[in-house]
Amino acid sequence: MAQHPLRVIPLGGLGEIGKNMMALEYRREIIVIDAGVLFPEQDMLGVDLIIPNISYLIQNRDRVRAIFITHGHEDHTGALPYVLRDLKVPVYAPRLALGLISVKLKEHRNLRSAELVEAQPGKEIKAGPFRVDYFRVAHSIPDAMGLAIRTPLGLVIHTGDFKIDHTPVDGHPVSLAELARLCKDGVFLLLSDSTYAELPGYTPSERVVGEVLDRAIGEAQGRVMIATFASLISRVQMIIDAAFKHGRKVGTVGRSMVNNVKMAREMGYLTDPGNVLVQMSELRKLPSDRVVVVTTGSQGEPTSALVRIANGEHREIQIVPGDTVILSSTPIPGNETVVSRTIDNLFRQGAEVLYDKVALVHVHGHASQEELKMMLNLTRPKFFIPVHGAHRHLIAHTMLAHSLGVPQENTFVLEDGDVLELSDAGGETVDQVPAGHVYIAGKHIWDMKSVVMRDRQTLSRDGIVVVMLTVDKAGRVVKRPAVVSSGFVDISESTDLLERTSEAAWNAAGNGNGDITAQVKESLGSFLYKETGRRPMILPMSVEV
Amino acid sequence: MAQHPLRVIPLGGLGEIGKNMMALEYRREIIVIDAGVLFPEQDMLGVDLIIPNISYLIQNRDRVRAIFITHGHEDHTGALPYVLRDLKVPVYAPRLALGLISVKLKEHRNLRSAELVEAQPGKEIKAGPFRVDYFRVAHSIPDAMGLAIRTPLGLVIHTGDFKIDHTPVDGHPVSLAELARLCKDGVFLLLSDSTYAELPGYTPSERVVGEVLDRAIGEAQGRVMIATFASLISRVQMIIDAAFKHGRKVGTVGRSMVNNVKMAREMGYLTDPGNVLVQMSELRKLPSDRVVVVTTGSQGEPTSALVRIANGEHREIQIVPGDTVILSSTPIPGNETVVSRTIDNLFRQGAEVLYDKVALVHVHGHASQEELKMMLNLTRPKFFIPVHGAHRHLIAHTMLAHSLGVPQENTFVLEDGDVLELSDAGGETVDQVPAGHVYIAGKHIWDMKSVVMRDRQTLSRDGIVVVMLTVDKAGRVVKRPAVVSSGFVDISESTDLLERTSEAAWNAAGNGNGDITAQVKESLGSFLYKETGRRPMILPMSVEV
Repeated sequence: MAQHPLRVIPLGGLGEIGKNMMALEYRREIIVIDAGVLFPEQDMLGVDLIIPNISYLIQNRDRVRAIFITHGHEDHTGALPYVLRDLKVPVYAPRLALGLISVKLKEHRNLRSAELVEAQPGKEIKAGPFRVDYFRVAHSIPDAMGLAIRTPLGLVIHTGDFKIDHTPVDGHPVSLAELARLCKDGVFLLLSDSTYAELPGYTPSERVVGEVLDRAIGEAQGRVMIATFASLISRVQMIIDAAFKHGRKVGTVGRSMVNNVKMAREMGYLTDPGNVLVQMSELRKLPSDRVVVVTTGSQGEPTSALVRIANGEHREIQIVPGDTVILSSTPIPGNETVVSRTIDNLFRQGAEVLYDKVALVHVHGHASQEELKMMLNLTRPKFFIPVHGAHRHLIAHTMLAHSLGVPQENTFVLEDGDVLELSDAGGETVDQVPAGHVYIAGKHIWDMKSVVMRDRQTLSRDGIVVVMLTVDKAGRVVKRPAVVSSGFVDISESTDLLERTSEAAWNAAGNGNGDITAQVKESLGSFLYKETGRRPMILPMSVEV
Repeated sequence: MAQHPLRVIPLGGLGEIGKNMMALEYRREIIVIDAGVLFPEQDMLGVDLIIPNISYLIQNRDRVRAIFITHGHEDHTGALPYVLRDLKVPVYAPRLALGLISVKLKEHRNLRSAELVEAQPGKEIKAGPFRVDYFRVAHSIPDAMGLAIRTPLGLVIHTGDFKIDHTPVDGHPVSLAELARLCKDGVFLLLSDSTYAELPGYTPSERVVGEVLDRAIGEAQGRVMIATFASLISRVQMIIDAAFKHGRKVGTVGRSMVNNVKMAREMGYLTDPGNVLVQMSELRKLPSDRVVVVTTGSQGEPTSALVRIANGEHREIQIVPGDTVILSSTPIPGNETVVSRTIDNLFRQGAEVLYDKVALVHVHGHASQEELKMMLNLTRPKFFIPVHGAHRHLIAHTMLAHSLGVPQENTFVLEDGDVLELSDAGGETVDQVPAGHVYIAGKHIWDMKSVVMRDRQTLSRDGIVVVMLTVDKAGRVVKRPAVVSSGFVDISESTDLLERTSEAAWNAAGNGNGDITAQVKESLGSFLYKETGRRPMILPMSVEV
């Protein structure tokens, strides 16, 4: 009998960054790895979130056995509230991720119906023909893990997001020995994080940033404010340690920072033996040289605490000369402009500002090329699929695999929706399932080509002109059409233009032959373009009297 | 009699990057340096260009003596077509800049009325109490110059955009000896380019890129396509030289690239002794290993040649495996995402892609810290004002000036609109003139807070709902209101919603007491938010029957 293949189906995060999700399938049984969201770009108007297209999973819902989450970041977990509406399967996750997921599900009111199970290294989980073990990796959130998945074809290693940090702040380095032991009988397939596959060398240890922050806090004369990702608990730990050393107290600002620090403290991911963490009300009573504030907003998010502080609009915190503000982060691609503006505004308010261009105040959470090679070397996989990254990252990672001796025909650069069938004999993309962007906007879920999105584009560029035609039973326009506009021209400067538009509409409507609204639409289109150089949306409405 | 002060009035480019413009004023006589545009960010909906606010100059138009342009880039010249509508003054510029400005003015049909004069180093220009000499600098366009301005208070040096390149491609290095000679009697004020004041070290010479391109062209097996800025003539020169060396011909693609190369060739800024430059029709007849294509689109501009090629949508050029594509540029902040997408798509089409992250295919055109120090050291100014840059760049540059011994009270970090009065005794900001963004959208010019811009924001996020109320003479709604929407919800999925909206509008209108449209607007606002989680613009219109 021929061998059954293992089917690998990326549903998100391959060929683009974010919303990571992947399905593994063997003999019609499916497990899912991660379920992330992507945050929309500026030109995706009115979109709150982007989630993977899971219609393949929904169609085959009775064959899905479980979802395995590698760590608690939103680009690996954020789609769960939507996915679990349709898939009633257990979700396995490391402890911290489980805590974060619970909070999200509660907000969406589907916590009660969810089956959440804590995963731990060494405790194998059985799901259909798959047996899944977790192993620790280092990443920019505690409790990040990779997966060792035993399948009938052999071992599949999925690294999750990882870097190799020999001195991580949480004291859990990637256990290379443990990984080597798991892989001792050979690895059928390696799926490895490609986010930084373009970067030569090693990613520095989180400790390096700790030393910079420690020095900055030690040297500061006044207050110190540090903005970073709310999930970057190890960074907060180092800030607590440095504050303790230099006799300062630490307060938190920004909803997600306050909540995450509180939760991490309760769950034991943050230790504070010196009782450094205090309420902001208590912090305010201290002299400025005894104060450290940890805040959200390191990505220049418009409503975040740091941005409001930078704009002088924060209720509680005003910048005063002598303050030191540290942006302990790097702008995520797309955020460069807003982050720059925030830095400028902080300088304007009189702060000393430290940021990635002028000081080593951040290291990222993904492996660079030498670490990726180490992972390839430790696992020595038969097949290799780069995951997590834009297409060029996957290509760069594949080159590394080739340089380490994985044969070209055994590496696969996939795109979301590809169905790759792998067996001992080799691999082949045999099918495509629906993939791509599904937009969450308010309470609605839309697909990419929705006319709604297209209309918003037009509206946002040139606005709208509404023409109201009053017609009689014979379809004749009986009075001068009313015209209003929005987002089109400055009305105070252009009452005349709207009047002439009304006249043009009346003329175009003519004597009621043919499709009046179409005639008005077309004729006003040319009229307004000639007058203004713009192409607003034209919306004629007719009312019969 | 007290000394008259020199007034320095930045109108653009201080505290933000782009649209550089500055006025110098002595005893009511004004000269202007540069007149640039800024290209809008993604969230500036429907805006084509941003120009400086020149109302101060317009108010004092009879006192403006001349405009001095330092080089031909749009962020120094692009506002001229608008500025010259209101200011009838001579414009001085280096030869290449003059050519580029002429093209622009012709497009705007105000070339005939403009007084354009070629400026040359060593040929002093008199403008009121100012005597202006040009000196050569290196930058990413040929014929870039700085200004040495003799004023009654002493010499003012304005560097323009510059770097110090000892081996520039055009053979005109910054003449440090010439600059030293100009400054030998002391410098009253230095105005110096701050764009890269955050960057330690030296900016590499343009030659370095030439060597990388030469090697890439030499090693390529198939066609080579190189995308870069159309104004970066020195880059094109190096490509021509390398193509000649390796027996290839060069064609140009993309309107601005074709035009700029043609003009640079005619004006003598490009030399092609080997007759390497050919028409695309001729290039197409050659085998792929004899072809180099130079194209626009290095910033991922949606309608550019490279982006259309990357998307497989270009009429003439399709990527085939074996092609090498080089993005000889760095993404301008804000363009990272679109550039990344372009690179990914080129890889997808089968090209080998070289870009800034993986090869030294670009150097920028601005001085880094060591060069800025050299400029400060050569000029040894009494007063220093950093120009060209976001606020943090100006701060970083000021720190360098302090480290070189310029006293803190003699350095001034200005913002656009500040009026600084300088005399031997010191300087002081004495006034503010109107500054900030003026938007060009189609044929309209708008200011920042225009309600039009705000409306476009709302429209783009959540769309619009138009409600048509038919009312009788007593103001009573006599029939069920018609409701249409755009950019709000997918109509095919929500006819029901629009019907219920109509019903809600009818109920809200009640019996015609009070302001019906206001009642409908408010009540539909809450209704739709509850139903959809969105806040569309609501536009009630009433027609009386």
